[in-house]
Amino acid sequence: MSTLNALKQNCRKVICIGRNYADHIAELNNTRPKQPFFFLKPSSSILLPDHGPVLRPKGVSLHYEVELALVIGRTVRDLDERDEEGVLGAIESYLLAIDMTARNVQEEAKKKGLPWSIAKGFDTFLPISSVIPKTAIPDPHNVHLSLSVNDQVRQSDNTELMLFKIPRQIAEISKVMTLEKGDIVLTGTPKGVGSVEAGDVMKCGIKVDGKELQEGRIEVE
Amino acid sequence: MSTLNALKQNCRKVICIGRNYADHIAELNNTRPKQPFFFLKPSSSILLPDHGPVLRPKGVSLHYEVELALVIGRTVRDLDERDEEGVLGAIESYLLAIDMTARNVQEEAKKKGLPWSIAKGFDTFLPISSVIPKTAIPDPHNVHLSLSVNDQVRQSDNTELMLFKIPRQIAEISKVMTLEKGDIVLTGTPKGVGSVEAGDVMKCGIKVDGKELQEGRIEVE
Ligand SMILES: [Mg+2]
Ligand SMILES: [Mg+2]
Ligand SMILES: [Mg+2]
Repeated sequence: MSTLNALKQNCRKVICIGRNYADHIAELNNTRPKQPFFFLKPSSSILLPDHGPVLRPKGVSLHYEVELALVIGRTVRDLDERDEEGVLGAIESYLLAIDMTARNVQEEAKKKGLPWSIAKGFDTFLPISSVIPKTAIPDPHNVHLSLSVNDQVRQSDNTELMLFKIPRQIAEISKVMTLEKGDIVLTGTPKGVGSVEAGDVMKCGIKVDGKELQEGRIEVE
Repeated sequence: MSTLNALKQNCRKVICIGRNYADHIAELNNTRPKQPFFFLKPSSSILLPDHGPVLRPKGVSLHYEVELALVIGRTVRDLDERDEEGVLGAIESYLLAIDMTARNVQEEAKKKGLPWSIAKGFDTFLPISSVIPKTAIPDPHNVHLSLSVNDQVRQSDNTELMLFKIPRQIAEISKVMTLEKGDIVLTGTPKGVGSVEAGDVMKCGIKVDGKELQEGRIEVE
């Protein structure tokens, strides 16, 4: 099995931080959370590189959200965010990922107080890049994420803008649910989310010190 | 690895149907859904028999919901509910399960339009029974579920009361997310949900034709 197939096969949960960039909260008219909140995507929604396209369910307004993702390397629970070594030691590698969202389904769920699982959980709703070795990202709070649609840049921001940093995210998640090897954490999306239509091509990239990481590229229809 | 350890280890998602019994909808003042909706619990929340107690996070109003659960035996997607054979053929075995819920956390999430994942996803929030062989339940829409707290019966109803039957549930889920071997589906809870305190003992049982199934017992603090 290829590394990427194994990644999908070994992933038992995907935990996604919501509302973690101020300008993204503003663009969707959401309120800023006092503490990190998160939701689950099923591992069945993972779309491996070159396994596209993303499938748009009928009647769905399909939005992209580019995010830095963490692959967990060991079982951790009840972590303290001040234990930076413990927290960052739990990270095995990184990915770039697109948290595809059925925005109209999500908006209706929000209005009705219903779960987000359907809006976030369709097959193909989680395109990922190849695995980015941990050593390629010396500081996950200082990388530049971008997403373009048909070569027009739509999202382009630095992870330094995260409201809750990664140690806080992992600590909060681990106080609710044990994180296990193979789990994936999505760290939130910067501003610029929007919709795509059939045939549109999304390209995502991640830069460290101005240099593009080849493993971090996503190109998907 | 024991069968039950393997069950937890091989489970990649747990999909739970919400509001599937009319009297339970009424008791929580919820509105009746026009179509089945569902949410995810992480497999890390599974609590195997004799691995208790259920852990109550600080400040949480901890509610029980007894439910009939299905263990999926093969990969299925886009099933048609009228294809009863295809749907029921996807079921490998049954479990009894308690969908533990941080009710106050869920109520706040509902009010704010936030996801349910935290309210539903804490470690130990999914106590399950031993595996019930498929042959032991000739008709999953005609079994009797019960839950008692300190030997006082709190939930006691027949699965014939389900608003959406199992073929409809599996079909709807499979149109959103591919179901895979080892996935678990919770089919909703009848009326009578309520809270438990530390030290309370929950016992659950399932009867077919008035006869208790030994494999289906849960006893957990
Ligand atoms: Mg949810
Ligand atoms: Mg997101
Ligand atoms: Mg339930």
